[in-house]
Amino acid sequence: MVRLPRLQHLHQWKAKTAKQKHDGTVGLLTYPVLQAADVLLYKSTHVPVGEDQAQHLELVQDLARGFNKKYGAFFPLPAPLLTSMKKVKSLRDPSAKMSKSDPDKLATVRITDSPEEIVQKFRKAVTDFTSEVTYEPASRAGVANMVAIHSAVTGLPVAEVVRRSAGIDTARYKLVVADAVIEKFAPIKSEIEKLKLDREHLEKVLQVGSAKAKDIAYPVCQEVKKLVGFL
Amino acid sequence: MVRLPRLQHLHQWKAKTAKQKHDGTVGLLTYPVLQAADVLLYKSTHVPVGEDQAQHLELVQDLARGFNKKYGAFFPLPAPLLTSMKKVKSLRDPSAKMSKSDPDKLATVRITDSPEEIVQKFRKAVTDFTSEVTYEPASRAGVANMVAIHSAVTGLPVAEVVRRSAGIDTARYKLVVADAVIEKFAPIKSEIEKLKLDREHLEKVLQVGSAKAKDIAYPVCQEVKKLVGFL
Repeated sequence: MVRLPRLQHLHQWKAKTAKQKHDGTVGLLTYPVLQAADVLLYKSTHVPVGEDQAQHLELVQDLARGFNKKYGAFFPLPAPLLTSMKKVKSLRDPSAKMSKSDPDKLATVRITDSPEEIVQKFRKAVTDFTSEVTYEPASRAGVANMVAIHSAVTGLPVAEVVRRSAGIDTARYKLVVADAVIEKFAPIKSEIEKLKLDREHLEKVLQVGSAKAKDIAYPVCQEVKKLVGFL
Repeated sequence: MVRLPRLQHLHQWKAKTAKQKHDGTVGLLTYPVLQAADVLLYKSTHVPVGEDQAQHLELVQDLARGFNKKYGAFFPLPAPLLTSMKKVKSLRDPSAKMSKSDPDKLATVRITDSPEEIVQKFRKAVTDFTSEVTYEPASRAGVANMVAIHSAVTGLPVAEVVRRSAGIDTARYKLVVADAVIEKFAPIKSEIEKLKLDREHLEKVLQVGSAKAKDIAYPVCQEVKKLVGFL
Protein backbone atom coordinates (compact mmCIF):
# COMPACT_ATOMS: atom_id res chain seq x y z
CA MET A 1 0.00 0.00 0.00
CA VAL A 2 3.01 2.34 0.04
CA ARG A 3 4.85 3.48 -3.05
CA LEU A 4 8.60 4.07 -2.94
CA PRO A 5 8.64 7.89 -3.39
CA ARG A 6 6.26 8.28 -0.42
CA LEU A 7 9.04 6.98 1.84
CA GLN A 8 11.88 8.66 -0.04
CA HIS A 9 10.26 12.06 0.53
CA LEU A 10 10.08 11.76 4.32
CA HIS A 11 12.28 14.35 6.10
CA GLN A 12 13.93 11.81 8.42
CA TRP A 13 15.04 9.59 5.50
CA LYS A 14 16.36 12.59 3.58
CA ALA A 15 18.14 14.04 6.61
CA LYS A 16 19.70 10.75 7.70
CA THR A 17 20.82 9.64 4.24
CA ALA A 18 22.15 13.12 3.40
CA LYS A 19 24.50 12.85 6.39
CA GLN A 20 25.86 9.42 5.42
CA LYS A 21 28.62 8.77 2.94
CA HIS A 22 26.83 5.73 1.51
CA ASP A 23 23.21 5.27 0.43
CA GLY A 24 20.59 4.59 3.08
CA THR A 25 19.61 1.06 4.02
CA VAL A 26 16.28 -0.48 3.10
CA GLY A 27 15.73 -1.11 6.82
CA LEU A 28 15.91 2.63 7.51
CA LEU A 29 13.68 3.40 4.52
CA THR A 30 10.93 1.01 5.57
CA TYR A 31 11.15 1.83 9.29
CA PRO A 32 8.16 4.25 9.16
CA VAL A 33 6.03 1.42 7.71
CA LEU A 34 7.03 -0.79 10.64
CA GLN A 35 6.12 2.08 12.98
CA ALA A 36 2.74 2.38 11.23
CA ALA A 37 2.10 -1.33 11.77
CA ASP A 38 3.05 -0.95 15.45
CA VAL A 39 0.49 1.84 15.82
CA LEU A 40 -2.34 0.30 13.77
CA LEU A 41 -1.98 -3.19 15.26
CA TYR A 42 -3.61 -1.84 18.44
CA LYS A 43 -6.20 0.33 16.67
CA SER A 44 -4.51 3.24 18.44
CA THR A 45 -6.45 6.51 18.55
CA HIS A 46 -3.70 8.79 19.92
CA VAL A 47 0.08 8.66 19.61
CA PRO A 48 2.46 10.80 21.70
CA VAL A 49 5.10 12.00 19.24
CA GLY A 50 7.83 14.58 19.00
CA GLU A 51 7.52 17.13 16.21
CA ASP A 52 10.09 15.18 14.18
CA GLN A 53 7.70 12.22 14.07
CA ALA A 54 4.63 14.20 12.96
CA GLN A 55 5.28 13.35 9.31
CA HIS A 56 5.55 9.66 10.13
CA LEU A 57 2.19 9.86 11.86
CA GLU A 58 0.75 11.35 8.66
CA LEU A 59 1.96 8.21 6.90
CA VAL A 60 0.14 6.11 9.52
CA GLN A 61 -3.03 8.12 8.90
CA ASP A 62 -2.67 7.72 5.11
CA LEU A 63 -2.25 3.97 5.50
CA ALA A 64 -5.27 3.72 7.81
CA ARG A 65 -7.31 5.80 5.34
CA GLY A 66 -6.13 3.71 2.37
CA PHE A 67 -6.91 0.46 4.18
CA ASN A 68 -10.37 1.68 5.22
CA LYS A 69 -11.14 2.80 1.68
CA LYS A 70 -10.15 -0.58 0.25
CA TYR A 71 -11.50 -2.95 2.91
CA GLY A 72 -14.17 -0.94 4.74
CA ALA A 73 -14.00 1.27 7.86
CA PHE A 74 -11.68 -0.57 10.23
CA PHE A 75 -8.81 1.51 11.63
CA PRO A 76 -9.36 4.74 13.59
CA LEU A 77 -7.16 7.57 12.25
CA PRO A 78 -4.62 8.04 15.07
CA ALA A 79 -4.12 11.66 16.18
CA PRO A 80 -0.78 13.05 17.37
CA LEU A 81 -0.33 14.03 21.00
CA LEU A 82 2.33 16.74 20.91
CA THR A 83 3.86 17.92 24.18
CA SER A 84 4.55 21.60 24.74
CA MET A 85 8.26 20.76 24.30
CA LYS A 86 7.99 19.64 20.71
CA LYS A 87 11.62 19.20 19.85
CA VAL A 88 14.76 19.18 21.99
CA LYS A 89 17.78 20.23 19.96
CA SER A 90 21.31 18.82 20.09
CA LEU A 91 23.56 20.63 22.57
CA ARG A 92 26.34 20.57 19.97
CA ASP A 93 24.32 21.56 16.88
CA PRO A 94 21.04 23.36 17.64
CA SER A 95 19.94 22.93 14.01
CA ALA A 96 19.65 19.16 14.60
CA LYS A 97 17.41 17.33 17.04
CA MET A 98 18.83 15.82 20.22
CA SER A 99 19.12 12.14 19.44
CA LYS A 100 20.18 9.13 21.49
CA SER A 101 22.02 7.80 18.43
CA ASP A 102 24.13 10.97 18.00
CA PRO A 103 27.81 9.90 17.71
CA ASP A 104 28.88 13.07 19.59
CA LYS A 105 28.37 12.04 23.22
CA LEU A 106 28.22 15.70 24.33
CA ALA A 107 25.18 16.36 22.10
CA THR A 108 22.73 14.40 24.20
CA VAL A 109 21.72 14.46 27.86
CA ARG A 110 20.57 11.15 29.28
CA ILE A 111 18.32 10.71 32.29
CA THR A 112 20.91 8.30 33.65
CA ASP A 113 23.83 10.76 33.32
CA SER A 114 25.59 11.70 36.55
CA PRO A 115 25.18 15.33 37.73
CA GLU A 116 28.85 15.90 36.75
CA GLU A 117 28.20 14.66 33.18
CA ILE A 118 25.12 16.87 32.85
CA VAL A 119 27.04 19.93 34.04
CA GLN A 120 29.87 19.16 31.63
CA LYS A 121 27.48 18.73 28.66
CA PHE A 122 25.68 22.01 29.33
CA ARG A 123 28.98 23.80 29.92
CA LYS A 124 30.12 22.73 26.44
CA ALA A 125 26.74 23.42 24.80
CA VAL A 126 26.97 25.55 21.66
CA THR A 127 25.52 29.04 22.15
CA ASP A 128 26.78 32.28 20.54
CA PHE A 129 28.80 35.46 21.24
CA THR A 130 25.95 37.42 22.84
CA SER A 131 25.93 37.01 26.62
CA GLU A 132 22.31 38.00 27.31
CA VAL A 133 19.67 35.27 27.73
CA THR A 134 16.83 35.69 25.21
CA TYR A 135 14.39 33.36 23.39
CA GLU A 136 14.95 33.86 19.66
CA PRO A 137 14.88 30.36 18.07
CA ALA A 138 15.50 31.65 14.53
CA SER A 139 18.57 33.79 15.18
CA ARG A 140 19.84 32.32 18.49
CA ALA A 141 19.00 28.62 18.23
CA GLY A 142 21.52 27.45 20.84
CA VAL A 143 20.39 29.84 23.59
CA ALA A 144 16.72 29.31 22.68
CA ASN A 145 17.28 25.56 23.13
CA MET A 146 18.65 26.23 26.66
CA VAL A 147 15.59 28.33 27.45
CA ALA A 148 13.21 25.72 26.00
CA ILE A 149 14.85 22.93 28.03
CA HIS A 150 14.77 25.16 31.13
CA SER A 151 11.07 25.83 30.59
CA ALA A 152 10.31 22.15 29.99
CA VAL A 153 12.06 20.85 33.11
CA THR A 154 10.74 23.58 35.44
CA GLY A 155 7.24 23.71 33.96
CA LEU A 156 7.53 27.53 33.82
CA PRO A 157 6.49 29.45 30.67
CA VAL A 158 9.36 30.54 28.37
CA ALA A 159 8.74 34.22 29.11
CA GLU A 160 8.99 33.62 32.85
CA VAL A 161 12.22 31.65 32.44
CA VAL A 162 13.73 34.48 30.39
CA ARG A 163 12.54 37.10 32.94
CA ARG A 164 14.21 35.23 35.79
CA SER A 165 17.49 35.03 33.89
CA ALA A 166 17.81 38.79 33.51
CA GLY A 167 21.29 39.96 34.40
CA ILE A 168 23.13 36.64 34.13
CA ASP A 169 25.24 35.77 31.11
CA THR A 170 24.79 32.63 28.97
CA ALA A 171 27.87 30.94 30.47
CA ARG A 172 26.34 31.14 33.95
CA TYR A 173 22.86 30.44 32.57
CA LYS A 174 24.04 27.07 31.20
CA LEU A 175 24.82 26.02 34.76
CA VAL A 176 21.40 27.18 35.95
CA VAL A 177 19.77 25.04 33.27
CA ALA A 178 22.05 22.11 34.08
CA ASP A 179 21.00 22.35 37.75
CA ALA A 180 17.31 22.44 36.79
CA VAL A 181 17.78 19.39 34.57
CA ILE A 182 19.66 17.53 37.32
CA GLU A 183 16.87 18.34 39.78
CA LYS A 184 14.15 17.19 37.37
CA PHE A 185 15.98 13.96 36.49
CA ALA A 186 17.11 13.05 40.03
CA PRO A 187 13.97 11.18 41.18
CA ILE A 188 13.56 9.49 37.77
CA LYS A 189 17.22 8.49 37.75
CA SER A 190 17.00 7.04 41.24
CA GLU A 191 13.83 5.11 40.34
CA ILE A 192 15.62 3.71 37.24
CA GLU A 193 18.56 2.62 39.39
CA LYS A 194 16.25 1.00 41.94
CA LEU A 195 14.28 -0.83 39.23
CA LYS A 196 17.44 -2.09 37.53
CA LEU A 197 18.39 -3.94 40.71
CA ASP A 198 15.06 -5.81 40.72
CA ARG A 199 15.51 -7.94 37.63
CA GLU A 200 12.73 -10.31 38.59
CA HIS A 201 10.20 -7.49 38.78
CA LEU A 202 11.32 -6.14 35.40
CA GLU A 203 10.98 -9.55 33.72
CA LYS A 204 7.48 -9.75 35.17
CA VAL A 205 6.56 -6.31 33.84
CA LEU A 206 7.79 -7.34 30.38
CA GLN A 207 5.81 -10.58 30.49
CA VAL A 208 2.61 -8.95 31.70
CA GLY A 209 2.95 -6.12 29.19
CA SER A 210 3.67 -8.49 26.35
CA ALA A 211 0.64 -10.64 27.20
CA LYS A 212 -1.58 -7.57 27.41
CA ALA A 213 -0.29 -6.28 24.07
CA LYS A 214 -0.90 -9.66 22.42
CA ASP A 215 -4.46 -9.76 23.76
CA ILE A 216 -5.20 -6.48 22.01
CA ALA A 217 -3.18 -7.13 18.86
CA TYR A 218 -4.14 -10.71 18.06
CA PRO A 219 -7.84 -10.15 17.23
CA VAL A 220 -6.97 -7.04 15.17
CA CYS A 221 -4.37 -9.01 13.23
CA GLN A 222 -6.84 -11.83 12.59
CA GLU A 223 -9.51 -9.41 11.39
CA VAL A 224 -7.00 -7.76 9.04
CA LYS A 225 -6.05 -11.16 7.62
CA LYS A 226 -9.72 -11.94 7.03
CA LEU A 227 -10.38 -8.56 5.40
CA VAL A 228 -7.47 -8.83 2.97
CA GLY A 229 -8.30 -12.46 2.22
CA PHE A 230 -5.43 -14.30 3.93
CA LEU A 231 -7.90 -16.28 6.10
CA MET B 1 22.25 -4.95 5.32
CA VAL B 2 20.80 -3.85 1.97
CA ARG B 3 21.07 -0.33 0.60
CA LEU B 4 18.24 1.12 -1.47
CA PRO B 5 20.01 1.33 -4.88
CA ARG B 6 20.88 -2.39 -4.66
CA LEU B 7 17.16 -3.20 -4.92
CA GLN B 8 16.34 -0.40 -7.34
CA HIS B 9 18.87 -1.78 -9.84
CA LEU B 10 17.37 -5.27 -9.99
CA HIS B 11 15.95 -6.11 -13.46
CA GLN B 12 12.62 -7.35 -12.13
CA TRP B 13 11.94 -4.13 -10.22
CA LYS B 14 12.93 -2.01 -13.20
CA ALA B 15 10.86 -4.08 -15.65
CA LYS B 16 7.76 -4.21 -13.45
CA THR B 17 7.79 -0.54 -12.45
CA ALA B 18 8.52 0.58 -16.05
CA LYS B 19 5.27 -1.13 -17.14
CA GLN B 20 3.13 0.54 -14.45
CA LYS B 21 1.61 3.99 -14.68
CA HIS B 22 2.36 4.71 -11.02
CA ASP B 23 5.53 4.19 -8.98
CA GLY B 24 6.29 0.73 -7.64
CA THR B 25 5.22 -0.32 -4.18
CA VAL B 26 7.65 -0.82 -1.30
CA GLY B 27 6.29 -4.38 -1.01
CA LEU B 28 7.47 -5.15 -4.54
CA LEU B 29 10.82 -3.43 -3.92
CA THR B 30 11.60 -5.41 -0.78
CA TYR B 31 10.27 -8.72 -2.11
CA PRO B 32 13.76 -10.02 -3.05
CA VAL B 33 14.88 -9.46 0.56
CA LEU B 34 11.94 -11.56 1.76
CA GLN B 35 12.96 -14.22 -0.77
CA ALA B 36 16.52 -14.09 0.58
CA ALA B 37 15.24 -14.64 4.11
CA ASP B 38 13.15 -17.59 2.89
CA VAL B 39 16.27 -19.15 1.36
CA LEU B 40 18.72 -18.41 4.19
CA LEU B 41 16.34 -19.42 6.99
CA TYR B 42 16.96 -23.07 6.01
CA LYS B 43 20.69 -22.67 5.37
CA SER B 44 19.85 -23.72 1.81
CA THR B 45 22.77 -24.81 -0.36
CA HIS B 46 20.97 -25.03 -3.74
CA VAL B 47 17.98 -23.14 -5.13
CA PRO B 48 16.13 -24.16 -8.31
CA VAL B 49 15.50 -20.88 -10.16
CA GLY B 50 14.50 -19.65 -13.58
CA GLU B 51 16.95 -17.39 -15.37
CA ASP B 52 14.83 -14.37 -14.38
CA GLN B 53 15.56 -15.12 -10.72
CA ALA B 54 19.33 -15.53 -11.09
CA GLN B 55 19.90 -11.90 -10.11
CA HIS B 56 17.80 -12.31 -7.00
CA LEU B 57 19.90 -15.31 -6.02
CA GLU B 58 23.00 -13.11 -6.36
CA LEU B 59 21.39 -10.82 -3.78
CA VAL B 60 20.91 -13.84 -1.50
CA GLN B 61 24.59 -14.74 -1.93
CA ASP B 62 25.66 -11.14 -1.21
CA LEU B 63 23.54 -11.11 1.95
CA ALA B 64 24.94 -14.44 3.11
CA ARG B 65 28.49 -13.20 2.39
CA GLY B 66 27.83 -9.91 4.20
CA PHE B 67 26.35 -11.68 7.21
CA ASN B 68 29.25 -14.15 7.39
CA LYS B 69 31.78 -11.33 7.16
CA LYS B 70 30.12 -9.44 10.00
CA TYR B 71 29.12 -12.27 12.33
CA GLY B 72 31.41 -15.16 11.36
CA ALA B 73 30.96 -18.04 8.88
CA PHE B 74 27.34 -19.11 9.28
CA PHE B 75 25.34 -19.28 6.04
CA PRO B 76 26.38 -21.46 3.08
CA LEU B 77 26.34 -19.49 -0.19
CA PRO B 78 23.36 -21.00 -2.02
CA ALA B 79 24.06 -22.00 -5.64
CA PRO B 80 21.47 -21.73 -8.43
CA LEU B 81 20.06 -24.88 -10.01
CA LEU B 82 19.13 -23.82 -13.54
CA THR B 83 17.09 -26.19 -15.68
CA SER B 84 17.90 -26.60 -19.38
CA MET B 85 14.73 -24.56 -20.09
CA LYS B 86 15.94 -21.40 -18.48
CA LYS B 87 13.16 -19.04 -19.43
CA VAL B 88 9.75 -19.67 -21.00
CA LYS B 89 8.57 -16.63 -22.90
CA SER B 90 5.07 -15.18 -23.08
CA LEU B 91 3.04 -16.58 -26.00
CA ARG B 92 1.79 -13.06 -26.72
CA ASP B 93 5.07 -11.16 -26.35
CA PRO B 94 8.19 -13.31 -26.73
CA SER B 95 10.35 -10.46 -25.39
CA ALA B 96 8.72 -10.93 -21.95
CA LYS B 97 8.78 -13.98 -19.71
CA MET B 98 5.73 -16.20 -19.38
CA SER B 99 4.21 -15.17 -16.06
CA LYS B 100 1.23 -16.42 -14.08
CA SER B 101 0.37 -12.82 -13.23
CA ASP B 102 0.21 -11.70 -16.90
CA PRO B 103 -3.11 -9.85 -17.40
CA ASP B 104 -3.35 -11.28 -20.96
CA LYS B 105 -4.82 -14.73 -20.32
CA LEU B 106 -3.57 -15.99 -23.71
CA ALA B 107 0.06 -15.28 -22.75
CA THR B 108 0.37 -18.10 -20.26
CA VAL B 109 -0.25 -21.84 -20.42
CA ARG B 110 -1.29 -23.45 -17.14
CA ILE B 111 -0.88 -27.09 -16.26
CA THR B 112 -4.57 -27.12 -15.34
CA ASP B 113 -5.72 -25.71 -18.70
CA SER B 114 -8.04 -27.95 -20.72
CA PRO B 115 -6.63 -29.36 -24.00
CA GLU B 116 -8.94 -26.97 -25.89
CA GLU B 117 -7.54 -23.95 -24.01
CA ILE B 118 -3.96 -25.06 -24.67
CA VAL B 119 -4.65 -25.47 -28.40
CA GLN B 120 -6.32 -22.06 -28.54
CA LYS B 121 -3.41 -20.36 -26.74
CA PHE B 122 -0.79 -21.88 -29.06
CA ARG B 123 -2.93 -21.13 -32.12
CA LYS B 124 -2.92 -17.44 -31.12
CA ALA B 125 0.76 -17.43 -30.12
CA VAL B 126 2.76 -14.56 -31.68
CA THR B 127 5.25 -15.79 -34.30
CA ASP B 128 6.27 -13.96 -37.52
CA PHE B 129 5.72 -13.90 -41.29
CA THR B 130 8.22 -16.65 -42.14
CA SER B 131 6.56 -20.03 -42.31
CA GLU B 132 9.65 -22.23 -41.81
CA VAL B 133 10.44 -23.59 -38.32
CA THR B 134 13.93 -22.52 -37.16
CA TYR B 135 15.62 -21.79 -33.83
CA GLU B 136 16.87 -18.18 -33.96
CA PRO B 137 16.07 -16.61 -30.57
CA ALA B 138 17.50 -13.19 -31.49
CA SER B 139 15.69 -12.62 -34.76
CA ARG B 140 12.70 -15.01 -34.43
CA ALA B 141 11.89 -14.94 -30.71
CA GLY B 142 8.29 -16.20 -31.07
CA VAL B 143 9.16 -19.28 -33.13
CA ALA B 144 12.26 -19.97 -31.03
CA ASN B 145 10.01 -19.95 -27.94
CA MET B 146 7.79 -22.61 -29.58
CA VAL B 147 10.86 -24.72 -30.35
CA ALA B 148 12.23 -24.27 -26.80
CA ILE B 149 8.90 -25.30 -25.26
CA HIS B 150 8.68 -28.25 -27.67
CA SER B 151 12.21 -29.33 -26.69
CA ALA B 152 11.45 -28.93 -22.97
CA VAL B 153 8.24 -30.98 -22.95
CA THR B 154 9.55 -33.77 -25.21
CA GLY B 155 13.04 -33.91 -23.69
CA LEU B 156 14.52 -33.82 -27.22
CA PRO B 157 17.42 -31.50 -28.08
CA VAL B 158 16.50 -28.28 -29.88
CA ALA B 159 18.29 -29.38 -33.08
CA GLU B 160 16.33 -32.64 -33.16
CA VAL B 161 13.04 -30.82 -32.66
CA VAL B 162 13.85 -28.46 -35.53
CA ARG B 163 14.93 -31.39 -37.80
CA ARG B 164 11.63 -33.18 -37.17
CA SER B 165 9.64 -30.06 -38.05
CA ALA B 166 11.16 -29.75 -41.54
CA GLY B 167 8.50 -29.16 -44.16
CA ILE B 168 5.69 -28.00 -41.86
CA ASP B 169 4.80 -24.33 -41.53
CA THR B 170 4.67 -22.43 -38.22
CA ALA B 171 0.83 -22.42 -38.16
CA ARG B 172 0.78 -26.23 -38.19
CA TYR B 173 3.84 -26.41 -35.95
CA LYS B 174 1.99 -24.49 -33.21
CA LEU B 175 -0.53 -27.34 -33.07
CA VAL B 176 2.27 -29.92 -32.90
CA VAL B 177 3.74 -28.08 -29.91
CA ALA B 178 0.29 -27.71 -28.32
CA ASP B 179 -0.22 -31.49 -28.62
CA ALA B 180 3.19 -32.19 -27.06
CA VAL B 181 2.39 -29.82 -24.18
CA ILE B 182 -1.03 -31.43 -23.65
CA GLU B 183 0.60 -34.88 -23.60
CA LYS B 184 3.27 -33.77 -21.10
CA PHE B 185 0.75 -32.04 -18.81
CA ALA B 186 -2.00 -34.73 -18.94
CA PRO B 187 -0.73 -37.02 -16.14
CA ILE B 188 0.26 -34.01 -13.96
CA LYS B 189 -3.13 -32.40 -14.56
CA SER B 190 -4.99 -35.57 -13.63
CA GLU B 191 -2.88 -35.98 -10.47
CA ILE B 192 -3.70 -32.36 -9.50
CA GLU B 193 -7.40 -33.02 -10.04
CA LYS B 194 -7.26 -36.21 -7.98
CA LEU B 195 -5.38 -34.48 -5.13
CA LYS B 196 -7.79 -31.55 -5.06
CA LEU B 197 -10.63 -33.93 -4.22
CA ASP B 198 -8.75 -35.23 -1.15
CA ARG B 199 -8.80 -32.13 1.01
CA GLU B 200 -7.95 -34.03 4.18
CA HIS B 201 -4.76 -35.42 2.64
CA LEU B 202 -3.75 -31.96 1.43
CA GLU B 203 -4.27 -30.39 4.87
CA LYS B 204 -2.11 -33.16 6.31
CA VAL B 205 0.66 -32.53 3.76
CA LEU B 206 0.59 -28.81 4.64
CA GLN B 207 0.76 -29.56 8.38
CA VAL B 208 3.57 -32.08 8.08
CA GLY B 209 5.52 -29.82 5.72
CA SER B 210 5.04 -26.80 7.95
CA ALA B 211 6.23 -28.73 11.03
CA LYS B 212 9.26 -30.00 9.12
CA ALA B 213 10.10 -26.50 7.89
CA LYS B 214 9.82 -25.09 11.41
CA ASP B 215 12.11 -27.79 12.79
CA ILE B 216 14.81 -26.70 10.36
CA ALA B 217 14.17 -22.95 10.55
CA TYR B 218 13.75 -22.44 14.29
CA PRO B 219 17.31 -23.27 15.41
CA VAL B 220 18.76 -21.23 12.52
CA CYS B 221 16.61 -18.26 13.49
CA GLN B 222 17.65 -18.58 17.15
CA GLU B 223 21.32 -18.76 16.21
CA VAL B 224 20.96 -15.67 14.01
CA LYS B 225 19.30 -13.79 16.88
CA LYS B 226 22.18 -14.76 19.15
CA LEU B 227 24.82 -13.75 16.60
CA VAL B 228 23.33 -10.31 15.99
CA GLY B 229 22.77 -9.77 19.71
CA PHE B 230 18.97 -10.02 19.95
CA LEU B 231 19.23 -12.90 22.44
